[in-house]
Amino acid sequence: MFYQTIDILGTVAFAISGVLVAMEKRLDLFGVLIIAFVTAIGGGTLRDLLIGNTPVVWMRDLTYVLTIAITVVFGVIFVNQLKYFRKSLFLFDTIGIGLYTMLGIEKGLQAELSPIMCIALGTMTASFGGVLRDILCNEIPVIFRKEIYATACILGGASYFLFTKLPIESNYAYIAAISVVIVLRLLAVRFGIRLPNIYRTES
Amino acid sequence: MFYQTIDILGTVAFAISGVLVAMEKRLDLFGVLIIAFVTAIGGGTLRDLLIGNTPVVWMRDLTYVLTIAITVVFGVIFVNQLKYFRKSLFLFDTIGIGLYTMLGIEKGLQAELSPIMCIALGTMTASFGGVLRDILCNEIPVIFRKEIYATACILGGASYFLFTKLPIESNYAYIAAISVVIVLRLLAVRFGIRLPNIYRTES
Amino acid sequence: MFYQTIDILGTVAFAISGVLVAMEKRLDLFGVLIIAFVTAIGGGTLRDLLIGNTPVVWMRDLTYVLTIAITVVFGVIFVNQLKYFRKSLFLFDTIGIGLYTMLGIEKGLQAELSPIMCIALGTMTASFGGVLRDILCNEIPVIFRKEIYATACILGGASYFLFTKLPIESNYAYIAAISVVIVLRLLAVRFGIRLPNIYRTES
Repeated sequence: MFYQTIDILGTVAFAISGVLVAMEKRLDLFGVLIIAFVTAIGGGTLRDLLIGNTPVVWMRDLTYVLTIAITVVFGVIFVNQLKYFRKSLFLFDTIGIGLYTMLGIEKGLQAELSPIMCIALGTMTASFGGVLRDILCNEIPVIFRKEIYATACILGGASYFLFTKLPIESNYAYIAAISVVIVLRLLAVRFGIRLPNIYRTES
Repeated sequence: MFYQTIDILGTVAFAISGVLVAMEKRLDLFGVLIIAFVTAIGGGTLRDLLIGNTPVVWMRDLTYVLTIAITVVFGVIFVNQLKYFRKSLFLFDTIGIGLYTMLGIEKGLQAELSPIMCIALGTMTASFGGVLRDILCNEIPVIFRKEIYATACILGGASYFLFTKLPIESNYAYIAAISVVIVLRLLAVRFGIRLPNIYRTES
Repeated sequence: MFYQTIDILGTVAFAISGVLVAMEKRLDLFGVLIIAFVTAIGGGTLRDLLIGNTPVVWMRDLTYVLTIAITVVFGVIFVNQLKYFRKSLFLFDTIGIGLYTMLGIEKGLQAELSPIMCIALGTMTASFGGVLRDILCNEIPVIFRKEIYATACILGGASYFLFTKLPIESNYAYIAAISVVIVLRLLAVRFGIRLPNIYRTES
């Protein structure tokens, strides 16, 4: 119940982030719906495809599709009011990527993949919806350029495998890892921490 | 035989639409071939991947690949004459999306998915080849911006599930649903009906 | 051992080509890593997805991920020196596509696909990493526009099926086909051979 609530809040936040980017591009209603949808379920879909877990999750559980559709309807109606919810949405989004990272890691463990691959799957689950959103909107994905986002997922995912070595219950390790993702992302945004951009210094 | 003919005409129309977009970008012969190919089989491929129906259809049936290759050869040779066939091509394309929508729905039913997911699969089959074409050509997909296309698939797909509730043979429901897609698309183009574009009204 | 060495050199060359393109776009460290990664494993991943060979190869063998990560670290540190290695990198890349073409064909044969599909899979394995790299960097894929690249894979792949008809050992046919890819690519670059670009001659 607790996880499900977070999952839905994360889905809502991801879908809204899709609505916002789609609006900037002045897409039509169908375009907005698809971008919202891809942003919310793209990461998990890629993960499921890579490990061969098909039909992919959202095909077997209507909750996601309905949540996203309702979010888009509200998002489109209250498009001019969305700015007042920026902080809540950022919070949902941040909690969402923490949870999605661990969901991806769990799927990797179930598929008996190595820890590094599990962390990769977790990061993908949390961040590739946004990558697909940006590709569909004809932008270079923002997480490749300036946001600490995937890095928080990677470090949080790695922390999970450290925590499981400690003499604590696996549930606590799970929640601790989610917290690491969330705290890293909050700190990065609060203090404007970014990864270095890479380029040639001479021409 | 009847369906197969439509399937091939649809494949031809989709491939030509790929050739036309690729030409605008002045791609080379290989680029034109790939864009034509992706436009024609992209939707069905995504559908098959999502439901885990692999190897994907066109890998097991040479008809598609040969049809597309021959279409590209003719398209490239008669590139300056293609404009005279615009109406026929539009008609093939429209019949094609009607058929592809129902093909996708059938696959969804075989995979025992819910009606909503079947409609989503049908819409994907009919419209995501064009989405992939536009992404490969570095454009925001046209169906996200201005064309009534996917909407016709969604409504036509939904009509199928209504028709199957009626006391008519399932074959008739099938054909009726295809007709709904076709008629909606023709009406939308004839009367210039578009979905509303979504954007912020204040800055 | 011999093949493995080539495989790793090819992976290095593909990853570096990703680093170079990502740098042009001034991506951050994570972006560079992902682009390098996608360039190196994108073709094989698409191949594995299409034939349903999941979890995809790089998820089950850490060699690729580690090779790419180390390559990116060196690439980023020695970013200003990379130009001195252009020739070696081009050679690795060219040997890499030869090998990757045959790796793809082998997978197709294992999946009992027809020769044409095997060649398509081989070409995909060798060239679609670069396609995905360019899409993620918001460019029209370079192999659709000007480079003889896929064409060398297609002809080399076709030559393999001719060679297997000859009374020679299958290992020799394998190596001969790889050589055909390499030689065609070297000749094309040396003599500036390109495919014709397709466009309308009247407006």
